Amino acid sequence: VTAIESVRWSPSGDALRIIDQTRLPAELAELDLRTVDEVVEAIRTLAVRGAPAIGVAGAIGLVASLLPHVAEPTPALDARVLGHARAIRAARPTAVNLPWAVDRMLRAADAARRAGAGNAALLDALRAEATAVLDEDRAMCRRIGEHALPLLAGSAELSVLTHCNAGALATSGIGTALAPVYLAAESGRRVAVWADETRPLLQGSRLTAWELSRAGIPVTVIADNMAAALLRRGGVDAVLVGADRIAANGDVANKVGTYALALAARHHGVPFYVLAPWSTFDPACPTGAEIPIEERDPAEVRGGFGRATAPADVAAWNPAFDVTPAALVTAIVSDRGVHRPPYDFG
Amino acid sequence: VTAIESVRWSPSGDALRIIDQTRLPAELAELDLRTVDEVVEAIRTLAVRGAPAIGVAGAIGLVASLLPHVAEPTPALDARVLGHARAIRAARPTAVNLPWAVDRMLRAADAARRAGAGNAALLDALRAEATAVLDEDRAMCRRIGEHALPLLAGSAELSVLTHCNAGALATSGIGTALAPVYLAAESGRRVAVWADETRPLLQGSRLTAWELSRAGIPVTVIADNMAAALLRRGGVDAVLVGADRIAANGDVANKVGTYALALAARHHGVPFYVLAPWSTFDPACPTGAEIPIEERDPAEVRGGFGRATAPADVAAWNPAFDVTPAALVTAIVSDRGVHRPPYDFG
Repeated sequence: VTAIESVRWSPSGDALRIIDQTRLPAELAELDLRTVDEVVEAIRTLAVRGAPAIGVAGAIGLVASLLPHVAEPTPALDARVLGHARAIRAARPTAVNLPWAVDRMLRAADAARRAGAGNAALLDALRAEATAVLDEDRAMCRRIGEHALPLLAGSAELSVLTHCNAGALATSGIGTALAPVYLAAESGRRVAVWADETRPLLQGSRLTAWELSRAGIPVTVIADNMAAALLRRGGVDAVLVGADRIAANGDVANKVGTYALALAARHHGVPFYVLAPWSTFDPACPTGAEIPIEERDPAEVRGGFGRATAPADVAAWNPAFDVTPAALVTAIVSDRGVHRPPYDFG
Repeated sequence: VTAIESVRWSPSGDALRIIDQTRLPAELAELDLRTVDEVVEAIRTLAVRGAPAIGVAGAIGLVASLLPHVAEPTPALDARVLGHARAIRAARPTAVNLPWAVDRMLRAADAARRAGAGNAALLDALRAEATAVLDEDRAMCRRIGEHALPLLAGSAELSVLTHCNAGALATSGIGTALAPVYLAAESGRRVAVWADETRPLLQGSRLTAWELSRAGIPVTVIADNMAAALLRRGGVDAVLVGADRIAANGDVANKVGTYALALAARHHGVPFYVLAPWSTFDPACPTGAEIPIEERDPAEVRGGFGRATAPADVAAWNPAFDVTPAALVTAIVSDRGVHRPPYDFG
């Protein structure tokens, strides 16, 4: 059982290397990104996606985009650090991990300058910080999996339903929602994953099905609207999803469709677990109502893969995320442990 | 406000004329079907679909397929009537309207023979019966709409959410779930329809959006997984869906995804109405558990838009329908009126 590496340093160390997820499952293509425009574009077009992965991509991408400018005057480079950081930070609005990672990089830059670093030392410090973000993300995934496994210990074969992709392709490690799945498979336990295809961009059928198949883990794809019927039929031990932002009260913003899944899970008494890094918690957000929800191009709903599925002039609504109220979440599992209501993320 | 005619006699009266729904919304193409194989194939491939429409198509198609055989010996033609009826009856398993219409045709054939009809008179009787099925279907649609309108009288603008296509393309008239929408628009009331795209075959985005746009009725397409978030946001007066079979206890089999919608509607206190012809009630089926659920080719879930959306070797589950328990249905509206629990469909 080996998970794919979706975000990392290029071997030469001067670029952000990502798997271009827009080309999966047809083609496994990697991109090396070296400019701020390339990094922002990759995040915006979902070539790299998944809240933890875009945090790591933001950190490594920021460094890669600064490397060619090491010889600039100090004030110019400092302005550039801020400018690149601002652009990357704004590439997508909903996930908190991206601003979290970028802000962490800015603090590292600030600390380096305060310690008297010149440009080369500044970039060395930023490279070290980005590598720390990467390494911590990988370790975070395994810890989430380890904390989640005891919650999923009941059955000989582990059968879970997941939505979107919160797996290896959404992180730099073994994923968040899929981390316990990878760990269970590693330990030799039989596992079976049901994957919502996740319209409109099909991260479930394109990405989750691809990465699990590649790792040899049995996966069955369903259309999103079949999940409730599946839960009614029985045999699913738990619903496992990731999160893009978690408010102070435990409300969870995640890929649109998560909320419908939480309602169905509650109705059928199936545990609904949110698995996400600690960096997903946003104590500045009191409730889900304050989480900004990205609305994407309606054309994504009117078609797919360049083909029209609806009349071209028809209206469409395309919220990328929805909010699942804390009351529907059985527990939140982070790298720090299992959190149950009433939540205290302070 | 003029609805499309999706199922009818060809102008020459010797064929079943249908709109080929597999080619919508890209192209409006009509097919004239004259053989039992053509009729069965059209029903099986969903070129004609929608429970009432396939009932009408079965009745007209049966007659069309028999016309060339009028000169056969009487026993041969009688055997052919049964053989064609059996083949058409079995083209799809879930909707009750198809066997209902075919059995009605067989009773008409039996009555004609008992009254001494020769082959020509037999086929005249069958033609008259099929035309009656067609005319009654059109009248049925309007009566469903008239019975439903008082339930939807609360708001100046009528805003409804629907799933799949239970409109003009699913009947020979103005639809079932969409009948009150057409009637409201005819009367000059402002209406707004939210249409689930309805994976995997996209009847919502391809068909409902197309026929409503064509009739000048505002429609907004969403991915199926967005419906719960929409209902949470508010502003939707009611959920209106059709049905393929209704059990004696009021359990409703309809396009997969209906059940998830019913759960979300209940959670948000939005009325959930099932609109279907009286012929959809199956008193021989005590509960939804006895309704056979068609499972279609998993390839439909692994693709769409004419392209692969998942790895070719991954498993997929593709139930075409699900069962919504009677407890989640606010009321069932048929051409005979508004039915509320406890149901008595005798």
